[in-house]
Amino acid sequence: MRDVLDEWRPVVDETIEELLPRLVDDAYLADFFGEPTYQYDPDAVQAALSDPIWELLDRGGKRWRAVVFLLLVEAFGEDPDEYLPYACVPEILHNGTIIVDDVEDDASMRRGDAALHLEHGTDVALNAGNAMYFLPLKIITRDPGDLDDGTRLAAYEMLMYELNRTHLGQGMDIHWHNEKEIQMSERQYLEMCACKTGCLGRIVARLAAIVTGQSDAVEQAVADYAEQMSIAFQIGDDILDVEHTLDEAGAFGKEFGNDVREGKKTLMVIHAARNADPEDVARLEEILWADDNDEDEILEVIEILQSTGSIEYAREQALALAERARNHLSDLDLEPEPADHLSAFTRFVVERDV
Amino acid sequence: MRDVLDEWRPVVDETIEELLPRLVDDAYLADFFGEPTYQYDPDAVQAALSDPIWELLDRGGKRWRAVVFLLLVEAFGEDPDEYLPYACVPEILHNGTIIVDDVEDDASMRRGDAALHLEHGTDVALNAGNAMYFLPLKIITRDPGDLDDGTRLAAYEMLMYELNRTHLGQGMDIHWHNEKEIQMSERQYLEMCACKTGCLGRIVARLAAIVTGQSDAVEQAVADYAEQMSIAFQIGDDILDVEHTLDEAGAFGKEFGNDVREGKKTLMVIHAARNADPEDVARLEEILWADDNDEDEILEVIEILQSTGSIEYAREQALALAERARNHLSDLDLEPEPADHLSAFTRFVVERDV
Repeated sequence: MRDVLDEWRPVVDETIEELLPRLVDDAYLADFFGEPTYQYDPDAVQAALSDPIWELLDRGGKRWRAVVFLLLVEAFGEDPDEYLPYACVPEILHNGTIIVDDVEDDASMRRGDAALHLEHGTDVALNAGNAMYFLPLKIITRDPGDLDDGTRLAAYEMLMYELNRTHLGQGMDIHWHNEKEIQMSERQYLEMCACKTGCLGRIVARLAAIVTGQSDAVEQAVADYAEQMSIAFQIGDDILDVEHTLDEAGAFGKEFGNDVREGKKTLMVIHAARNADPEDVARLEEILWADDNDEDEILEVIEILQSTGSIEYAREQALALAERARNHLSDLDLEPEPADHLSAFTRFVVERDV
Repeated sequence: MRDVLDEWRPVVDETIEELLPRLVDDAYLADFFGEPTYQYDPDAVQAALSDPIWELLDRGGKRWRAVVFLLLVEAFGEDPDEYLPYACVPEILHNGTIIVDDVEDDASMRRGDAALHLEHGTDVALNAGNAMYFLPLKIITRDPGDLDDGTRLAAYEMLMYELNRTHLGQGMDIHWHNEKEIQMSERQYLEMCACKTGCLGRIVARLAAIVTGQSDAVEQAVADYAEQMSIAFQIGDDILDVEHTLDEAGAFGKEFGNDVREGKKTLMVIHAARNADPEDVARLEEILWADDNDEDEILEVIEILQSTGSIEYAREQALALAERARNHLSDLDLEPEPADHLSAFTRFVVERDV
């Protein structure tokens, strides 16, 4: 899995660089954004968009969304090199959401360094993050794959569908952070993940299907694959946060006990709230709801999650989702080698340790 | 002008309410966002999206973007009632940018009350603001005007063009706030306005032309009208900030000397920097660059702007832009009554006092 990621990452970054160069000049601006009515200020655009965006991209990220896109294209029997710019669509969107999420959560760290809004100011970071919501959508208009009108329209309507649901999921998640009572159901939690994390995965898969002209049934199957895998990924992420907190590992690039501090209602928390003693549930709600937590409180939450077997429960759910994701691929007529990689990805998202 | 605005505002708000009801339930969510994979949490969506968005809309706003859209449709000889949902596209986008801008600027007030991120938290406000970037784009997919595929694609490609430039303009503006030296040219300032404010105006005009099937030439002419009028509006807004600061009028709903505090490089500031004594320019840069300003410093900036005639200069530029905007309409074959209103709007945006 690592090999495929390592192989594609520089190619993906080179393609992103063609869409948003590290050095911005008037010629690029006129080409990408259109002729100015008066006069652009390339230095300002450099500082306000290119610099913060490239700083984030250069800090890391696995580009797995772009790689899954390219593997899907290959699995459909097409040449991934011909569709590289489209692979960047979900990747740029994802990195945009990271910047915006960090402002929303007032996060202090991102990928081992200060969060972008602390480095560049909330104004610059937020505008850059939001610009990354629209920059990639312009790729469809620029039409590097010479798609017909119907295909471009299908791509836009799909993107609008998924990007609306992204904000629905984020809204549910945020609202729950701010509520003291843990009253959402597991199905609502899974829906939140399906929207917040799953929709970006669905964009990866549906865009790959749309640009290569697959049938609706194939598009639906790979969308389900990506959605289930993304939910598994999200649950895996929440488990990792607990494990890294227990290890006190600074290498994760996030703060110690970040999810507890944020008051995140993870699947583990929801499961524990259903299965713990009333006093433990009250304690859980108390600590998660508090504006700030000390180390003892964070470890207390994790002990409650352990006492109810909630970490193990979440891992089983993630594994089951990953398996369901794989099964969505099994009826499709895919090229065997990329299909194997796509299957392997469903394991990777749950078993990864970073 | 007031009459037309007052007449349409409740109709526009009713239409927005059909797109995003004040009371969210499962049926609405399934209809607008699509069937859930698991289960939505309507209460969470209510609190995270509907409540903050309606709070902002209910606080006021003139809905002039929607009204200009409807006047253009009428001027093209079509029935505005048939295109009401499309009129809401720029209106919802605009209100979304307001929420996001207030987070970016860390504004404390909006429309006479606490800024939304202070009322609902940065996380809820920002997600709601960003949701308002995508909610209206879904209207094109929902297709209330029964548009053909080519028309819907044209609408999407236009929206992607303009929304990309919006973030370019905002980026330039923000970067300038954070720079001490006043070195941008007037043409760069006008470009910033053309992008940041003008693109929303262009969306109003181009969308009206696209959905009613006007020629490219007509679409271009009304886009130019809206762009020039929007720049005039922006300059008018900057002048109003100075005038209200001088009046110490709290009714404006913004802080006293807000633009100075933010370090905004307005056309007045750029003009003054070209025409004032070097010591005054240094003072101007100093005060605008400082993290915070007292009342004396704010008044000192305004005195410099007055000494160079920069407020008057900006007003002349705004009037000239408004005239140019009107001229873009004069060659078109428009219905006389709405055309008169559209002309009157170009005066209103410069001469308004709120």
